[in-house]
Amino acid sequence: MGNSFGRVFRISTFGESHGKAIGVIVDGCPAGLEIDEAFIQKELERRKPGQSKITTQRKEGDEVEILSGTFEGKSTGTPISMLIRNQDQKSKDYSHIAESFRPSHADFTYQAKYGLRDYRGGGRSSARETAARVAAGAIAKLLLKHYGVQINAYVSQVGEIKLDKPYQQLDLSQTDSNIVRCPDAALAEQMIGYIDLIRKERDTVGGIVSCVVKNTPVGLGEPVFDRLHADLGKAMLSINAVKGFEYGSGFAGIALRGSQHNDEFYTEEGKVKTKTNHSGGIQGGISNGEDIYFKVAFKPVATIMQDQASINEAGEAVTVSGKGRHDPCVVPRAVPIVEAMCALVLADHLLLNKLNKL
Amino acid sequence: MGNSFGRVFRISTFGESHGKAIGVIVDGCPAGLEIDEAFIQKELERRKPGQSKITTQRKEGDEVEILSGTFEGKSTGTPISMLIRNQDQKSKDYSHIAESFRPSHADFTYQAKYGLRDYRGGGRSSARETAARVAAGAIAKLLLKHYGVQINAYVSQVGEIKLDKPYQQLDLSQTDSNIVRCPDAALAEQMIGYIDLIRKERDTVGGIVSCVVKNTPVGLGEPVFDRLHADLGKAMLSINAVKGFEYGSGFAGIALRGSQHNDEFYTEEGKVKTKTNHSGGIQGGISNGEDIYFKVAFKPVATIMQDQASINEAGEAVTVSGKGRHDPCVVPRAVPIVEAMCALVLADHLLLNKLNKL
Amino acid sequence: MGNSFGRVFRISTFGESHGKAIGVIVDGCPAGLEIDEAFIQKELERRKPGQSKITTQRKEGDEVEILSGTFEGKSTGTPISMLIRNQDQKSKDYSHIAESFRPSHADFTYQAKYGLRDYRGGGRSSARETAARVAAGAIAKLLLKHYGVQINAYVSQVGEIKLDKPYQQLDLSQTDSNIVRCPDAALAEQMIGYIDLIRKERDTVGGIVSCVVKNTPVGLGEPVFDRLHADLGKAMLSINAVKGFEYGSGFAGIALRGSQHNDEFYTEEGKVKTKTNHSGGIQGGISNGEDIYFKVAFKPVATIMQDQASINEAGEAVTVSGKGRHDPCVVPRAVPIVEAMCALVLADHLLLNKLNKL
Amino acid sequence: MGNSFGRVFRISTFGESHGKAIGVIVDGCPAGLEIDEAFIQKELERRKPGQSKITTQRKEGDEVEILSGTFEGKSTGTPISMLIRNQDQKSKDYSHIAESFRPSHADFTYQAKYGLRDYRGGGRSSARETAARVAAGAIAKLLLKHYGVQINAYVSQVGEIKLDKPYQQLDLSQTDSNIVRCPDAALAEQMIGYIDLIRKERDTVGGIVSCVVKNTPVGLGEPVFDRLHADLGKAMLSINAVKGFEYGSGFAGIALRGSQHNDEFYTEEGKVKTKTNHSGGIQGGISNGEDIYFKVAFKPVATIMQDQASINEAGEAVTVSGKGRHDPCVVPRAVPIVEAMCALVLADHLLLNKLNKL
Repeated sequence: MGNSFGRVFRISTFGESHGKAIGVIVDGCPAGLEIDEAFIQKELERRKPGQSKITTQRKEGDEVEILSGTFEGKSTGTPISMLIRNQDQKSKDYSHIAESFRPSHADFTYQAKYGLRDYRGGGRSSARETAARVAAGAIAKLLLKHYGVQINAYVSQVGEIKLDKPYQQLDLSQTDSNIVRCPDAALAEQMIGYIDLIRKERDTVGGIVSCVVKNTPVGLGEPVFDRLHADLGKAMLSINAVKGFEYGSGFAGIALRGSQHNDEFYTEEGKVKTKTNHSGGIQGGISNGEDIYFKVAFKPVATIMQDQASINEAGEAVTVSGKGRHDPCVVPRAVPIVEAMCALVLADHLLLNKLNKL
Repeated sequence: MGNSFGRVFRISTFGESHGKAIGVIVDGCPAGLEIDEAFIQKELERRKPGQSKITTQRKEGDEVEILSGTFEGKSTGTPISMLIRNQDQKSKDYSHIAESFRPSHADFTYQAKYGLRDYRGGGRSSARETAARVAAGAIAKLLLKHYGVQINAYVSQVGEIKLDKPYQQLDLSQTDSNIVRCPDAALAEQMIGYIDLIRKERDTVGGIVSCVVKNTPVGLGEPVFDRLHADLGKAMLSINAVKGFEYGSGFAGIALRGSQHNDEFYTEEGKVKTKTNHSGGIQGGISNGEDIYFKVAFKPVATIMQDQASINEAGEAVTVSGKGRHDPCVVPRAVPIVEAMCALVLADHLLLNKLNKL
Repeated sequence: MGNSFGRVFRISTFGESHGKAIGVIVDGCPAGLEIDEAFIQKELERRKPGQSKITTQRKEGDEVEILSGTFEGKSTGTPISMLIRNQDQKSKDYSHIAESFRPSHADFTYQAKYGLRDYRGGGRSSARETAARVAAGAIAKLLLKHYGVQINAYVSQVGEIKLDKPYQQLDLSQTDSNIVRCPDAALAEQMIGYIDLIRKERDTVGGIVSCVVKNTPVGLGEPVFDRLHADLGKAMLSINAVKGFEYGSGFAGIALRGSQHNDEFYTEEGKVKTKTNHSGGIQGGISNGEDIYFKVAFKPVATIMQDQASINEAGEAVTVSGKGRHDPCVVPRAVPIVEAMCALVLADHLLLNKLNKL
Repeated sequence: MGNSFGRVFRISTFGESHGKAIGVIVDGCPAGLEIDEAFIQKELERRKPGQSKITTQRKEGDEVEILSGTFEGKSTGTPISMLIRNQDQKSKDYSHIAESFRPSHADFTYQAKYGLRDYRGGGRSSARETAARVAAGAIAKLLLKHYGVQINAYVSQVGEIKLDKPYQQLDLSQTDSNIVRCPDAALAEQMIGYIDLIRKERDTVGGIVSCVVKNTPVGLGEPVFDRLHADLGKAMLSINAVKGFEYGSGFAGIALRGSQHNDEFYTEEGKVKTKTNHSGGIQGGISNGEDIYFKVAFKPVATIMQDQASINEAGEAVTVSGKGRHDPCVVPRAVPIVEAMCALVLADHLLLNKLNKL
């Protein structure tokens, strides 16, 4: 259970880190959408390991194969399934984790929940699963593009290095111009230097991914439980290592007064707008046409290249040593994942909203 | 759409603020649970308006009637439906909102989404709907109590007045001993004074509700999408006025290093435990038996007793004046709502987890 | 579990035969639909007991109250909840079934499944629950009417008295002109006489309800699992006492050859049509615009006014005696129930089909 | 939409007849189940084309590859995905159906619903999709076997050749001993001869598959909508070419009287049993422990080796000629499909029923 997301634009992912393959089925993509395979592959490359010196040096091809659901370049309304074969899934030495529980990993909880676990590379709990989300998210992005919606995520914090400018002052087209995916070039340099330092110290650090959505139609969101921001929040919190979510004024907004926080309506060229946007583009759980913006907090990666005290399955004290090649900071590679999950939520709500009027 | 929550312990709410009634169906409550009606009513009274000088002075009886699903005091496995009749739903003057959009309310988005709206008291978008959640949450609490799980929410911030102590240093049994529901008596006084001041200034202010869950069994949470904290996050973000959610180390955790953040395992009396709990009791989306704790950010209430510039349905500039009796700060009454939504998530996952092993 | 039906036009029913009330929430009705309350009440009256000498003489008012989801006579897009209070639910003597299992009733299976049961009048397993379906189905019918779809069910068999004419030779507007709801007046007389005879013999008999849907748009049905006829079949089989379902050529079609059974396409005034309609208006699980027609088999009612051998909860042999006033044949009152369930399926698919194209 | 089946034991299938592959994800299989790959392959071989002279002579390997969800031979609680590559999917000549609508096929309805279609071999509407169901059903069968439940389907009618004996008089272990899968050897010969004749006449014929389930635990089925037989009915009606479903006394039961039809309870060795079983093992939608039995009607295959009049996409009259190699009668190969869908329904309900008691 728990491996599907969305209601009418619905994905189901499968696969373990070191099994034969991972993949995803997208059910509910309307027929007639042009499916640009090169775009899907490009999105996967933004997420894949080994893309720069501040990400894990592990090499994975992450080549996606579409198995169904398209014909002559277009979606047919039937399930679009995509497969990514794992490479090197054999022959590794997992004795260090086969019987031990790595601190702040899912080894213990999976073992307790299921009574057994595929320990190779973390199995299903590995962030490798997010590659399937990025592939599905690419389809959602193509659908949203058809309707003019645009999603831009970027790194706004690494450790204590913070991008304090509001997104309106940033050139979000510059996000991918540096390896940390921060649209402020100077700050990006600082972040890169800091992550490199952390990596050399065989440690890890957390960060924040911010996301802005422009051109959302008015009306997306299904109160009372499936408010647009509630679904965005769940989507983000379902990504590995995420510890918090806020949208619009967020946690900072609580110190404001209503008279400061309320967004005044006005009309411009026949369109309803608000003077401020503390609401973050969502009122009563429904998009109001203003920009949607939110922040996602990622904890420091649990795998560190240091010895740590832990226990094994028998409950005995053991030492767990970091092995392999891992990310010192997850946020640069998380940018396309945040965008993908955001796209999946919006695609689902865009379709759902077709049902609300006669 | 969007009026149901949960998968196997599933609630569906209905009703508008000034319609005939609000209510809820609880489907999936196991048979044989003692249904303590007095307890349900008591929970509703913790939420109801008019309970103190710092809440709205509106009077509502909020008397719950169980219509089905119980027999001789026990649940029968059939849907438990509960009804709360609205009082005074007639005869009010709504001319001030019938055709105008109140700033930062859902008037505009509902009108745009559905093409028409029940404007009386905000209709379905009113927080009155949360009374139905509290009634359903009371059933969930009874189920959790049967399994030994305990949920305690409390107010930890009002405006900039912050309760900085970790929850371990608080006596959570004291939460309801004051009207602001902050377990620290001295700080509670400050908060009460501040809210009273805000009220006199005809304004509103935001705040934070914190929540602690003790005795959760190991294994709750369904990766990869229905992680326990992802469902908690969605549940909280579905409450009116919520802008943010974090659990465990939350947003503050991002500045830590992995070597500081990781929770070391050890064994105590045959039980697996962690020395620290930055994970917030959830690892890989699954409860690990440690305390679950999280924070929920509430924005300042949008209804203020002041004149505000806005527009009407025709797009013309108008002045909207605050009328009626409203909460200057929502968090004291939000405490039972946060607990209710938390209970609903846990009850659902507790049942789901029965399915994971042979 | 199991008390909801539909995906995007979704109903949830609640209530026991002799509890306080039964009712239903309709979630997903598009906004702006005129809700004709008198029509809903009229549908309930077609189903209610005591309407003629061949139905049970029990008297129930079955007055429906709409609690939410409408405003100024129109649906608002929020959940429409409807309540039907039970009358006389107290004070009866149930000692004869409190501890015994009536043959071919749900007493034993409910007891075994849930460990306890509300035995009064069969509790949740009573066909009384179908009143809630009829109320919800009336909303679905109003939606379908808006789109021009027309549903007509009628009694085509009672015991061995069979209406052998194809529906095209019947005047379906005459169905309600007699108390057995058979559009052939002569045969209706025979059926009424037969049911009356059965009643006098303190016995019961089964029958068939046929149903015809005209003007269904092309394209309804979601392969591969949610084929239109699969959902119709489930809907019908979920009605109390139903033992079989067939559509189009049905069971008789198996003896035909492909060359006889295939429906040849042709074009008439630019519209694609078929010369025959063995397909029953559905091909590949999707409506093709031809009439949809199907049959539903109802077993003889289990409650008979005779002594029967059975066992009690302790497993001891007992005699169960029929008491109260029951239907000798269920099909006349089943006609509006079949129509209601059919309407619910079509409304759901009509909305779902809005999602299949860009 | 519509490509998933089940709630807590849930499958999602994908793939077109002549695309790259078909496959299925099984989500919700409990952890720790031994996954016998050879058994899955064997089930597929019972369904595959080319297995005898009375099935299509098309050759497909139908080799299944498990991509995820198992570890060291056991299920891990994560999604089990299975892939079956299509062979020869290229290079065929589809000009005869690319623009024409074959009578009683899904060509027209798919085109109308989606605006475009993958016409190669029927695309998604092809019965090839049922191979994925058989693979998933094999997992369900393994789960049911663990709980002692046994499913046996067999051919009971071909055209007008009928197996009139009740299943209790048959040796169901003999079903697979002949190519038509009828457990009565003499009648099997007749059926085979008849199908062969039909084949030579370039025509097709329908038939019935009967199914018996033994050892079902008491309590499966979720009233009021998800009654066990309602879900069985939907499952069967979702199989290509199915036109009808009945269980227990079925359509024949309607002519009985209640006094004849009711199943009297008695106790044997502390177990509640019924003397007759017109109920078909299900009462009030819940299994009562008696044998479950039902019948599924299949129409004659639409593809015949004869010229037929039809229209093309432009609405012009055309002649469609049968090409390729097709089944003259679908029921022998439908036996494992009926068993698979039955197993999926029972597995889902078996798990759901774990939730009904405290």
